[in-house]
Amino acid sequence: MLFEKISCTYTYLLADSRSKEAVIIDPVIEEVNRDVKLIEDLGLKLLYAANTHCHADHVTGTGLLKKMLIGCQSVISKDSGAMADIYIKEGDIINFGKFFLEARSTPGHTDGCLTFVLNDQTMAFTGDALLIRGCGRTDFQQGNAETLYRSVHGKIFTLPADCLLYPAHDYTGQTMTTVDEERRLNPRLTKPLTEFVTLMNNLNLPKPAQIDVAVPANLRCGVQDQPVASGP
Amino acid sequence: MLFEKISCTYTYLLADSRSKEAVIIDPVIEEVNRDVKLIEDLGLKLLYAANTHCHADHVTGTGLLKKMLIGCQSVISKDSGAMADIYIKEGDIINFGKFFLEARSTPGHTDGCLTFVLNDQTMAFTGDALLIRGCGRTDFQQGNAETLYRSVHGKIFTLPADCLLYPAHDYTGQTMTTVDEERRLNPRLTKPLTEFVTLMNNLNLPKPAQIDVAVPANLRCGVQDQPVASGP
Repeated sequence: MLFEKISCTYTYLLADSRSKEAVIIDPVIEEVNRDVKLIEDLGLKLLYAANTHCHADHVTGTGLLKKMLIGCQSVISKDSGAMADIYIKEGDIINFGKFFLEARSTPGHTDGCLTFVLNDQTMAFTGDALLIRGCGRTDFQQGNAETLYRSVHGKIFTLPADCLLYPAHDYTGQTMTTVDEERRLNPRLTKPLTEFVTLMNNLNLPKPAQIDVAVPANLRCGVQDQPVASGP
Repeated sequence: MLFEKISCTYTYLLADSRSKEAVIIDPVIEEVNRDVKLIEDLGLKLLYAANTHCHADHVTGTGLLKKMLIGCQSVISKDSGAMADIYIKEGDIINFGKFFLEARSTPGHTDGCLTFVLNDQTMAFTGDALLIRGCGRTDFQQGNAETLYRSVHGKIFTLPADCLLYPAHDYTGQTMTTVDEERRLNPRLTKPLTEFVTLMNNLNLPKPAQIDVAVPANLRCGVQDQPVASGP
């Protein structure tokens, strides 16, 4: 677990300590040097840089990681609309060593949001679908409160009660939660659907500080290069 | 694991999920409301608020936690010079449910620094003695580089190689390390003793922003009340 203080983003590095194969989830461009140093110090082979969705609040480190760690492939859902080497969808598997992550489609914050579940269902990485005692906003980027509610209840709350949940963000310094905690204590998702929708549709939040930079960049893996000019 | 962004302090809440008995390590006064809410939401009984040492960079939440959660007792080493309900030293045990923490004396950053080791030695909480790829400074509050070096090598690096280490701070967004990683990769503690001492004695760091407030407050459990006036 790695933290970026400006956008309060959590990045997760998972590895098989024997084969050294590794996956990074939701890297942030400002912290790529830190992440590469850690990966190299630990002697890991980074197979995949996976994004839970096309982020609006920070620029992904995926493109830069790919440049610095040759062989690493980017992974995202097709529904995100973003570029990547590998597109995955509900039920697809990301293998690393003897472990794998199962992708669950959890739209609502964005159309393309995925939750990554570890093979033994002891951990899941929920992106912005479910936060600790909260959830991602649903007022831009195809956001839909009813869709989010059904995603969380159908795909995350159905995991084992003691499954540890790791979100893409926390703004209060908390770092993890469990399915049981959120089923009981999430102040939004424990409401009936109609109340949840009304609440989410009336949050009146300012738009994320980095959205105008982040979304266009993240559609291209966070790489800031100019597109190659087309012929005359 | 809980994070406080100003002083980059990690606070740890450990609990036995059956008996609900819990211990908090290194709480920060600004985050006590968050911590109390979490403890209450989880239905925990906080037995102890333990400090690894008398901090110079933030005010401890111990005193305020004791006021808000009746029955909670403060714990620190006698050598810290700070007030507490319970003084512990090398080899003493903090019980919570079926678990316990063993105190190891790891002076050098301060005289009273303790490392708390979980009963099965899968985790240790190192305070400022050992940080991720770093260590606490040794230039004030009884700091002594040679003492710190002997503490880390004698009391922390002797734990099992895969023991997870949780420090009191990290300034780069990293959250945990292992004994094996630090034995191999810590840029300071892998040096010979004499080089380490020279390095530590020439860091020329500015003093912590909150030291003039934090140390006097922390000598009294972080409680800001005036001492009760003595009789005539």
